[in-house]
Amino acid sequence: MTQMTNRQYFLASRPAQMPTADNVQCRDVPLAPPGPGEVTLRNLYISLDPAIRGWMGDAPNYIEPIALGDAVRSSVIGRVVSSNSPDFAVGDVAMSVGAWEQYTTAPAAGLNKLDEAAGIPLSLFLGALGPTGLTAYFGLLEVGRPRAGETVLVSAAAGAVGSVVGQIARMQGCRVVGMAGTDDKCAWLVDALGFDAAINYRTCGDYTAAIGKACPAGVDVYFDNVGGEILDAALLCLNPHARVAVCGWISTYNVANPPGPVNLWQLVAKSVTLQGFTVLDYLDRFGEGIGQLARWLQEGKLQYREEIVDGLDNILPTFLRLFDGSNAGKLVIRIPEQG
Amino acid sequence: MTQMTNRQYFLASRPAQMPTADNVQCRDVPLAPPGPGEVTLRNLYISLDPAIRGWMGDAPNYIEPIALGDAVRSSVIGRVVSSNSPDFAVGDVAMSVGAWEQYTTAPAAGLNKLDEAAGIPLSLFLGALGPTGLTAYFGLLEVGRPRAGETVLVSAAAGAVGSVVGQIARMQGCRVVGMAGTDDKCAWLVDALGFDAAINYRTCGDYTAAIGKACPAGVDVYFDNVGGEILDAALLCLNPHARVAVCGWISTYNVANPPGPVNLWQLVAKSVTLQGFTVLDYLDRFGEGIGQLARWLQEGKLQYREEIVDGLDNILPTFLRLFDGSNAGKLVIRIPEQG
Repeated sequence: MTQMTNRQYFLASRPAQMPTADNVQCRDVPLAPPGPGEVTLRNLYISLDPAIRGWMGDAPNYIEPIALGDAVRSSVIGRVVSSNSPDFAVGDVAMSVGAWEQYTTAPAAGLNKLDEAAGIPLSLFLGALGPTGLTAYFGLLEVGRPRAGETVLVSAAAGAVGSVVGQIARMQGCRVVGMAGTDDKCAWLVDALGFDAAINYRTCGDYTAAIGKACPAGVDVYFDNVGGEILDAALLCLNPHARVAVCGWISTYNVANPPGPVNLWQLVAKSVTLQGFTVLDYLDRFGEGIGQLARWLQEGKLQYREEIVDGLDNILPTFLRLFDGSNAGKLVIRIPEQG
Repeated sequence: MTQMTNRQYFLASRPAQMPTADNVQCRDVPLAPPGPGEVTLRNLYISLDPAIRGWMGDAPNYIEPIALGDAVRSSVIGRVVSSNSPDFAVGDVAMSVGAWEQYTTAPAAGLNKLDEAAGIPLSLFLGALGPTGLTAYFGLLEVGRPRAGETVLVSAAAGAVGSVVGQIARMQGCRVVGMAGTDDKCAWLVDALGFDAAINYRTCGDYTAAIGKACPAGVDVYFDNVGGEILDAALLCLNPHARVAVCGWISTYNVANPPGPVNLWQLVAKSVTLQGFTVLDYLDRFGEGIGQLARWLQEGKLQYREEIVDGLDNILPTFLRLFDGSNAGKLVIRIPEQG
């Protein structure tokens, strides 16, 4: 058997602003066999998430930055092609923390085996039934803590997380307003997902006025995916004792030295709570979350959009689409299996 | 009886930065008799608090801004000189929302009668046994939620609120570090109040390094009275799941368009909660708070410093001392009773 190679996209240098092909470069490295207790996956799906941009920097973060020279970290789903663990057989399908690469080798203890026979599209385990859905579920319910009748505002509402947040908020009996960057996305939010209103932030003019108009009773929960000027506007529209769930600030990730929000004084003026979180805070409750999300999907209560792009070599330009808003829903790279 | 007059300091214009004698002017107005259900107090003590600066602006706040032309709002303690209510007799002492004025006339329903015979210095009801102490009590225990063994950082720690916060945190079994602006204040925190360490922020150099050194196990609760650069430094020193209790941002009150904190991304990096509050959030629990604070004072567990300045005509320059840090502890104007 000839030596197999593993194509990887690795972090050659840290991006100052938008990542480039200088920052993320391609290489083919020999594929070593798995060590004791390890398993090698041939990756089928690679998750593309805004958070990955944060790991490319060197600032303190909730997990370690990606080391220079390492393949770019990502969640992956792959099929076992070589196992050095009694828990996994060749042909099994599993999810893992992996990278932008053809093959991921990881300790068996860190893999989650997926039941291909259940008929659930595998990519869902990276999205609605994976980190994305769980981020929406715990972020909204545990951090946002919406009550029936309250108004929930969601930014990046047509994105993988935001679209799930809005639908769960509707199920809680809330008025739900989403912000997105095209009229098509806004129409999808209202017509398909049942949002009460949507704001096209590229065309609405003054954010504060637009939010105020769409939320006549004020905002009780703001689920913040974007930060920046929209956060500043939302702060001015909050009701007393509002909660801001800070999931991510995609508007700032490719900006050097982004300014802080200038309206943060509203925290005291309105006794507001601004709480950052990551899905890892709820690791011990993933089972509960996935179970509930799966029931909602089965019952047709949760609509879900994903955009699957074929080919590992498309991964960097596809990743960058997260930042220009041209994707809708969950963005995934697929590496098709061949005969 | 000749017509009595009421000397008032009123808001003639809104200050852009530090309030001046143009913004806050003096006038003598005729003293009208109390209307039905009202009581007139001859003020004995007027509370000076950083929050008053916020009410002088026109931005949305937790209570209405002071209207232009109105006397500057403040908590006061006075003796009843005229009563149109069966609940108050001439000679009673009461606390009220009043103003920078000799006489305050207010509805009896809004007054709290104080028991002069109990022997507690009346000024304490504006401080340790009043809004100041309650702000410290509820802000630390309900917003900061410290647990034994955790590290609590307090800014403006020698101030009326901060000094009480630190002592309550010590009673919870926390390591307590205070920040203050003179070596004398720092020595008082450590030697008299039992803080574990104190940082002179005027001489310590890099804030982040100084906080890191004084809090080797990181910061679990930051009780923020100042905002600005110290908040930004504290954000970099927080432990995962830390709580920031935002009580006030005195460093920004006299600055036009203060910038926002640039390290706020630490909220997501560390799953931090930043919560604004005012003492009014706990109105229904004031009795509990005052009872506990009084017990601690009686038992000698709570040390308390106040600075009492005589004379209503000194009120504006005395108020401004809150912002240059030259006061220590609770600042109060006294209008002595004469013969």
